Amino acid sequence: MIGNNVKEIEDLVKIVSKLPGLGPKSAKRIVLKLINNREELIKPLTNTLAQVYKNVTRCNICGNLKSVKSNCICLGNNCDQICVVENIADMWVIESTGIYKGHYHILGGTLPSFESKNTKNGLLIDSLVERVKKNSVKEVILATSATVEGQTTAHYIQDSLKNTKVKISKLAQGVPVGGEIEFLDDGTLYSAFKNRATVVND
Amino acid sequence: MIGNNVKEIEDLVKIVSKLPGLGPKSAKRIVLKLINNREELIKPLTNTLAQVYKNVTRCNICGNLKSVKSNCICLGNNCDQICVVENIADMWVIESTGIYKGHYHILGGTLPSFESKNTKNGLLIDSLVERVKKNSVKEVILATSATVEGQTTAHYIQDSLKNTKVKISKLAQGVPVGGEIEFLDDGTLYSAFKNRATVVND
Repeated sequence: MIGNNVKEIEDLVKIVSKLPGLGPKSAKRIVLKLINNREELIKPLTNTLAQVYKNVTRCNICGNLKSVKSNCICLGNNCDQICVVENIADMWVIESTGIYKGHYHILGGTLPSFESKNTKNGLLIDSLVERVKKNSVKEVILATSATVEGQTTAHYIQDSLKNTKVKISKLAQGVPVGGEIEFLDDGTLYSAFKNRATVVND
Repeated sequence: MIGNNVKEIEDLVKIVSKLPGLGPKSAKRIVLKLINNREELIKPLTNTLAQVYKNVTRCNICGNLKSVKSNCICLGNNCDQICVVENIADMWVIESTGIYKGHYHILGGTLPSFESKNTKNGLLIDSLVERVKKNSVKEVILATSATVEGQTTAHYIQDSLKNTKVKISKLAQGVPVGGEIEFLDDGTLYSAFKNRATVVND
């Protein structure tokens, strides 16, 4: 029983606790905060959710989120670089570092690691090739994950772009910043040795 | 910039990150989950929030949350016991233990620790006295916090209920379960010694 068995509250707790990182306890705490701030939180949250539901869609060329009210930035803009990522979350993480300011292409997932390469699962790979051809793109940066699936996908994209003569690069592999050698896995150590950089007498 | 500068998404991230326990990162993760589950999450969440905004109110007798559609359970029900708490969150914690199944009275805060006792700050103390008189309540359990403010409030309630002859009890003070003596504060140790229980030869 939550507070007098008010059905609306129980429903809200149930939905909120489905959100990532939230359990029943934190959901209750959030619901309480919402109820105590009806005008400052419930009202704008309801409205904004309705707006997002109505207006936000995914661009079927670059895979990014866009407003139905306007064209996606991937249209009409000439872009020198395109950074290819698996999903929106990956793009947000890269954006938040500020290290890359160019355009993105969100695949919408990865290819399965072992299977015929023909099953693209609705990944936006063809439209990436189109974009590269149309916009005289100079570089495609493959920023898929360093997992088997991510690397399979990167290889497949590399193949698909073969005829475009665009420069293709991928993220460096090696020891992560703060990583202690003692605790690194074999694969990372292998990459770090293989890609070692000369620091003196180059 | 978040995903193509879609204003609706930026607004949503801003509001969600105001919720307790959430920062900008977890807010983004939640917004992403919402966007990826429009029908299963955004829609029901929007509707439920609207329902809560419209239908949930606070009972001005017992302070509990109630639906505007029905009477509060504090009306009409004879209740043997009333557990007095500071706020809804306290009630939810006690409820979740299952140790107490009776009625609650939610004060809506505490008295300031030092000040004239006449400033009740809109706390539902008068209505508690009313409830006790009307419903032939047998016991009032004071479950306010063991802080100066909580205890000041408890004392004030004790005074207010003097003429009703209702049994008044308060939560036991002592060593918390799992508490190591070495790390207890003086106040807790003092309470634990003062309230020590005889275990043999009572």
